[in-house]
Amino acid sequence: MQVAILVFDGITVLDAVGPYEVLGWLPEADVRLVGIEMGPVRSGQGTLALCADYTLGDVPAPDVVLVPGGPGEETLRRDAEVLAWLRDAHATSRWTTSVCTGACTLAAAGLLDGVEATTHWSSMETLRMLGATPVERRWARSGRIVTAAGVSAGIDMALHLLALEAGDDVARAAQLILEYDPQPPFDSGSPAKAPPHILARLQERIANLR
Amino acid sequence: MQVAILVFDGITVLDAVGPYEVLGWLPEADVRLVGIEMGPVRSGQGTLALCADYTLGDVPAPDVVLVPGGPGEETLRRDAEVLAWLRDAHATSRWTTSVCTGACTLAAAGLLDGVEATTHWSSMETLRMLGATPVERRWARSGRIVTAAGVSAGIDMALHLLALEAGDDVARAAQLILEYDPQPPFDSGSPAKAPPHILARLQERIANLR
Repeated sequence: MQVAILVFDGITVLDAVGPYEVLGWLPEADVRLVGIEMGPVRSGQGTLALCADYTLGDVPAPDVVLVPGGPGEETLRRDAEVLAWLRDAHATSRWTTSVCTGACTLAAAGLLDGVEATTHWSSMETLRMLGATPVERRWARSGRIVTAAGVSAGIDMALHLLALEAGDDVARAAQLILEYDPQPPFDSGSPAKAPPHILARLQERIANLR
Repeated sequence: MQVAILVFDGITVLDAVGPYEVLGWLPEADVRLVGIEMGPVRSGQGTLALCADYTLGDVPAPDVVLVPGGPGEETLRRDAEVLAWLRDAHATSRWTTSVCTGACTLAAAGLLDGVEATTHWSSMETLRMLGATPVERRWARSGRIVTAAGVSAGIDMALHLLALEAGDDVARAAQLILEYDPQPPFDSGSPAKAPPHILARLQERIANLR
């Protein structure tokens, strides 16, 4: 099963790498990092480079498409070549998926019109403006489209997808190998759970970036 | 604060990228991917390349050292140049850390003799043979040394470290930005929680790889 993970400058690397580790457990997995050009792309912080081993044209019909998010997503969603590739790939994919703000690029490609989808908590309004129906879930499935919430949610979404394709036992094995038995030292992972002053500070910081 | 994340061929990418996303929140963070040589290193599966932007010699005295694990760790722990670099770096680091089987490389460098440390559940005996005192914890702190359990445990360990250096509120903010509110679809993330037949199958598979 061929998996295309789109990578681009300004990517949040964990959006891609969480699902990467899980989806390698698909039957006959052929996971490919696909870029607009071949070669390195840099993380949002600029301090890590991933290599795109394939261009969009090299991977026209993947079984699974995954679009990560990150600060660079705002440029990605305006790239006509990327949007055309996504529309074509979605026409034949088994699953078209996103993590974090990657959902905004799927929406910009016209794939989420009226579709229930999720994204990073800070981008729900953007997703709505792009035509989707935002829902607050860890991941949201609508037919062949599966969108995950922010960053780390890609791990949970990918385990769900793996179970659908390969069965619960394979997904449980992947979870065990990744020792994914989360024990965060705080319980601050969603706007509803974080202390209000921390949420307010981040909202202000994000607003200033825009 | 300068953070050196060691990267090498055969790395489990999530071991590095989980903490990468968290430790970027350290005050004046200067996070560097450090390799034996500069340039790309490939994941254990071979299908993803990360770029080392620095060599060992470029980063002789980081504040935080992080050694990820992965199938390539067995070669890493036999590399005299790496072990010497780790010993030197540890002499002046604030924190010397590992994720997953990266603890075995710290042990091979002589940094864990008689020290309580943890690693991936499948490598506890190896860690013991290398001189450490293995403990089953999500992360284990012994003075300036902090070791995490398998793969995804690096995220939890890094949040703990971030809280120690920058305070609980900064760690909570990082958790919220990463939307780290885990909701795995299964509860199979540790040997104690996974169904016994899945654990047995993986143990057999791992034994056959060795």
